[in-house]
Amino acid sequence: MNKFDEEKTINNTEKDLRLISGIIKRNGRKILKNYPITSPQFIALQWVTDREKLTIGELSNKIGLAFSTTTDLVDRMEKNGLVERIRDTEDRRVVRIVPLDKGKSVIKEVISKRQEYLGEVMSNLSDDEKDTISKSLNLLLLEMRKLNERD
Amino acid sequence: MNKFDEEKTINNTEKDLRLISGIIKRNGRKILKNYPITSPQFIALQWVTDREKLTIGELSNKIGLAFSTTTDLVDRMEKNGLVERIRDTEDRRVVRIVPLDKGKSVIKEVISKRQEYLGEVMSNLSDDEKDTISKSLNLLLLEMRKLNERD
Repeated sequence: MNKFDEEKTINNTEKDLRLISGIIKRNGRKILKNYPITSPQFIALQWVTDREKLTIGELSNKIGLAFSTTTDLVDRMEKNGLVERIRDTEDRRVVRIVPLDKGKSVIKEVISKRQEYLGEVMSNLSDDEKDTISKSLNLLLLEMRKLNERD
Repeated sequence: MNKFDEEKTINNTEKDLRLISGIIKRNGRKILKNYPITSPQFIALQWVTDREKLTIGELSNKIGLAFSTTTDLVDRMEKNGLVERIRDTEDRRVVRIVPLDKGKSVIKEVISKRQEYLGEVMSNLSDDEKDTISKSLNLLLLEMRKLNERD
């Protein structure tokens, strides 16, 4: 690929990725309307469910929000019965956040709705096309993570 | 593909897409820190720049936020010199939003930073891999748009 074509490919990819993220976000917001949870809470709840026992500091890094904003978020999630704070067994000064059953089932349901949506989006594609899209996204994600580690 | 493999492919794609969107969002937020504009304002400003002369109602549909939230957003963008409201020449009762030079140049700079980031992400991939990722994303975007039209 010459320099010009390469730039064009990158720029098209950036634009498509930006538009796809926008659609995913709006669709995600539509799904969340039926659940007792906001978009930032859903993002935080995913991390809390995926990674065992995060501290507020760790969670605040993962979701890219300030420590105080993250504390407020966790307060509201705790009030809604989605998570609870527990004391670390090794170091009693450390507080960790764990998901409660209600939080786990909300995450499960919302993700299953998102899978349903994507299944519909991809329903007219061939097996090969589905496979190529899946592999392409996985490769892109791996490269993004590699770059983050380099930072 | 059998039913099980197909479900696995969709579910992996959903997960990767969700994680990629999260990384894109956090990276986008990092870029915006150097500009006089918030994330929702950036999203609105993109629509206002891409589509000529949207009304508040049209913009509110595009960004998926309530009419009143969109009005507040436009107020703040107008105060920041990013957009202005103009009267429709055909129907003076209709107000349309147009980008000002400052708004256009902010969008241009932010998108160029995002392209730079994606260029870095993809810098270790072969031409073929870049091309496949670009085509896959484009196909996915087209299918998402088709489904939206079906709704």
